[in-house]
Amino acid sequence: MTNYQPNDTIVALATAHGSSAIAVIRLSGPNAFSVVEDYFYSKEQKRKSLTDKKSHTVHFGTIIHQDIIIDEVLVTIFKGPNSYTGQDSVEISCHGSLFIQQQLLKLFLSSGARMAQPGEFTMRAFLNGKLDLSQAEAVADLIASNSAISHQVAMQQMRGGFSNKIRLLRENLIDFAALIELELDFSEEDVEFANRNDLKNLIAKIIAVIGKLVNSFDVGNVIKNGIPVGIVGKPNAGKSTLLNTLLDDDRAIVSDIPGTTRDTIEDEITIDGVLFRFIDTAGLRTTSDVIEQIGVNKALEVIRKSAIVVYLFDSHEISSGDLKMEIDMLKDHIGDSQLVLVANKIDVENDSDLRKEFNQFPEMIYISAKHHKNIDVLKQKLVSLFDTRTINATDTIVTNARHANALRNAEKALYKVSEGLNGNIAGDLLALDIRYALEELGAITGQVTNEDLLDSIFTRFCIGK
Amino acid sequence: MTNYQPNDTIVALATAHGSSAIAVIRLSGPNAFSVVEDYFYSKEQKRKSLTDKKSHTVHFGTIIHQDIIIDEVLVTIFKGPNSYTGQDSVEISCHGSLFIQQQLLKLFLSSGARMAQPGEFTMRAFLNGKLDLSQAEAVADLIASNSAISHQVAMQQMRGGFSNKIRLLRENLIDFAALIELELDFSEEDVEFANRNDLKNLIAKIIAVIGKLVNSFDVGNVIKNGIPVGIVGKPNAGKSTLLNTLLDDDRAIVSDIPGTTRDTIEDEITIDGVLFRFIDTAGLRTTSDVIEQIGVNKALEVIRKSAIVVYLFDSHEISSGDLKMEIDMLKDHIGDSQLVLVANKIDVENDSDLRKEFNQFPEMIYISAKHHKNIDVLKQKLVSLFDTRTINATDTIVTNARHANALRNAEKALYKVSEGLNGNIAGDLLALDIRYALEELGAITGQVTNEDLLDSIFTRFCIGK
Repeated sequence: MTNYQPNDTIVALATAHGSSAIAVIRLSGPNAFSVVEDYFYSKEQKRKSLTDKKSHTVHFGTIIHQDIIIDEVLVTIFKGPNSYTGQDSVEISCHGSLFIQQQLLKLFLSSGARMAQPGEFTMRAFLNGKLDLSQAEAVADLIASNSAISHQVAMQQMRGGFSNKIRLLRENLIDFAALIELELDFSEEDVEFANRNDLKNLIAKIIAVIGKLVNSFDVGNVIKNGIPVGIVGKPNAGKSTLLNTLLDDDRAIVSDIPGTTRDTIEDEITIDGVLFRFIDTAGLRTTSDVIEQIGVNKALEVIRKSAIVVYLFDSHEISSGDLKMEIDMLKDHIGDSQLVLVANKIDVENDSDLRKEFNQFPEMIYISAKHHKNIDVLKQKLVSLFDTRTINATDTIVTNARHANALRNAEKALYKVSEGLNGNIAGDLLALDIRYALEELGAITGQVTNEDLLDSIFTRFCIGK
Repeated sequence: MTNYQPNDTIVALATAHGSSAIAVIRLSGPNAFSVVEDYFYSKEQKRKSLTDKKSHTVHFGTIIHQDIIIDEVLVTIFKGPNSYTGQDSVEISCHGSLFIQQQLLKLFLSSGARMAQPGEFTMRAFLNGKLDLSQAEAVADLIASNSAISHQVAMQQMRGGFSNKIRLLRENLIDFAALIELELDFSEEDVEFANRNDLKNLIAKIIAVIGKLVNSFDVGNVIKNGIPVGIVGKPNAGKSTLLNTLLDDDRAIVSDIPGTTRDTIEDEITIDGVLFRFIDTAGLRTTSDVIEQIGVNKALEVIRKSAIVVYLFDSHEISSGDLKMEIDMLKDHIGDSQLVLVANKIDVENDSDLRKEFNQFPEMIYISAKHHKNIDVLKQKLVSLFDTRTINATDTIVTNARHANALRNAEKALYKVSEGLNGNIAGDLLALDIRYALEELGAITGQVTNEDLLDSIFTRFCIGK
């Protein structure tokens, strides 16, 4: 953190790396205007001032260094505190040539700006009180969001929904602490100012809210990283074909809009705004008896990591009775995971026969991975399984492991307080745990913080944010 | 070109594709403001108008669709004709999440904007008289520029330097035509209003200027595409090591500035702002007698394509006499190309011995490709060879094949006029060729144009420009 000097003027490329129509270079700090003014001229090559311009205005001009025109640019100025960082800031929109981007950065570095650390713009926003810490973290989550739900959760957190909840919890807890400490002040006199029953109710209420937040992390984690789905089945069942079919569909949807092809991670797809992450089954050993192997080989690993297990089989290759046995054995292993039965390789001729053959499995989905048949039915099934796990867009959902951890610590401390109350422990002992819980909650929003924490949070950001 | 409807409102991502701190989405057209206003709200979720704001101002707000907040954004408005395209334009600076970029594009597409064609923003700028055609073409060159010189040439062209030259030529030619046509009007009377000698001088002057421009294309082409350099030599001479050493150096320089690693093309390097393109020698057959093969194998191909031929040899493996023979044979083949002799694998012990051994070759460069020794000397040599071909930053240099072609056509026509003058051909015959030359020059700046031409020019642009 010693590298972060909030009074330096920092500069970075803010747009994605690459040759493009335009690129944006961003500066923030006390000298943001003057660093640019050194090189900023009108089209007629007369010096142009930025300092005397109004905030939030855009100025066309040329950047000239030693009589060489680097570019014709649009310069937008933001005067602190009315900027993202809270400091004087400048955004330069230049032609998206890699050469020009490089030259402009060099120029500003040579006249006193320094390269921004990852996340340093947002850290300044935090240090200047424009965002609290959990909001700042949400900025990175928002940029990384790749599904409607992860986007909404990050957006809500960035806009302060989660912070407000934590602030309210702290206020309740401070009220509670005040009552306890009041009692403490008069402990000599053995007077209980705080009604113990009221205290017990209040702490139970606070614990309940925190508990709900802690539990939401299960869902939150899945939202952020995708719902892990394992596809298991015999080698000839068509697992790779199914995976490719799902991925192709996803890419086709995304690439409908030119210029926005998604950086797809090999095995992630988004269905109805929900991200699913398929777990690699490449390591599965090929054996004709998949059941025999399930207890010992990679399939077990896949199942262990999956929230949803898709059991895929070749509908021509197995009788209903054998399938029943296989599924029963499978069920012994899948624990809390959801099981989806999928009969593959159906065709027009045998469709109704198959449905008769497997009619003891009413939840069975019949598909042809190769011919993209009924893939939508399978997709809807996957989405519905997630829906049943309940997520409400307006719920506050914890997606950040650091927050979940702090909440768990606070919860633990408050349980001790609760036990203490029941055991009639003296107020001064309870106060210690309360203070600890307050600190943990304060760390979430950054009311309580330290350099190492900030360091570990902001180094995960991209440069330029 | 039927796809280009200048009264549609177009939208595109203007920044490079990818996840980043910020991304910019650009709209242009009569409905640019209203398309955005449909979804634009204040932080407190009250509708915000753009139409009533001043041009060149930036407005913070949220983009909301069906109660879902898509993003908090900065919206910059440009009111036509004071915009890049000349039309009402909007730039939306959003969080650089791929998901958000996609959602915003979808939103604007659904409310009446359409996806911009490649180069369509710049084409509108041309159609609205903000740029002439050669300036518009320079925008694409500027974005693609990857060296100081290609950048400067594109910049000069974009700023109208080349256009002014062409305009001046046309004016001279029109003056000339006026004189000829005056003569034509009075031809019945057999009076020569235009002094034939003055005419001859004027046309010679115009031809000279055009000739110089045509010739500059040799250099211009090299600036744009890099100077082709072939490295030839026996298989054990260290050709790949040398190439890798040169490329590594180049990458190291570029990656000094974080976030700006260049998209290096495998065999291009920039030295002192000059781009060199190394010609693949992978296909060279391995034979112990490179000279014997030179006439017949790939080496000849490499030499034919090269402006500079680097002849590399292992300094331990050849005597001065043999080298002399090899070089003499090589010289028979290299034609106009420049030859650079490079002794490789020198070390401290044998350095002075080698220099004695090869003292009949004073221009020889002694390097160790493996140990990065004297690589700078070789680089300076390459740059100096380019410098001797003379290029002056203020010269007008033609880098565009279309322009070179039009100039050549105009030149040809004017030679015919010149011959006609000498042969005392009647004015009405000369006028035809003059008109043709005028048309060719007009096509460069777009004074004379057609849909197919525009189509072929702008489809080479990136989307969003």
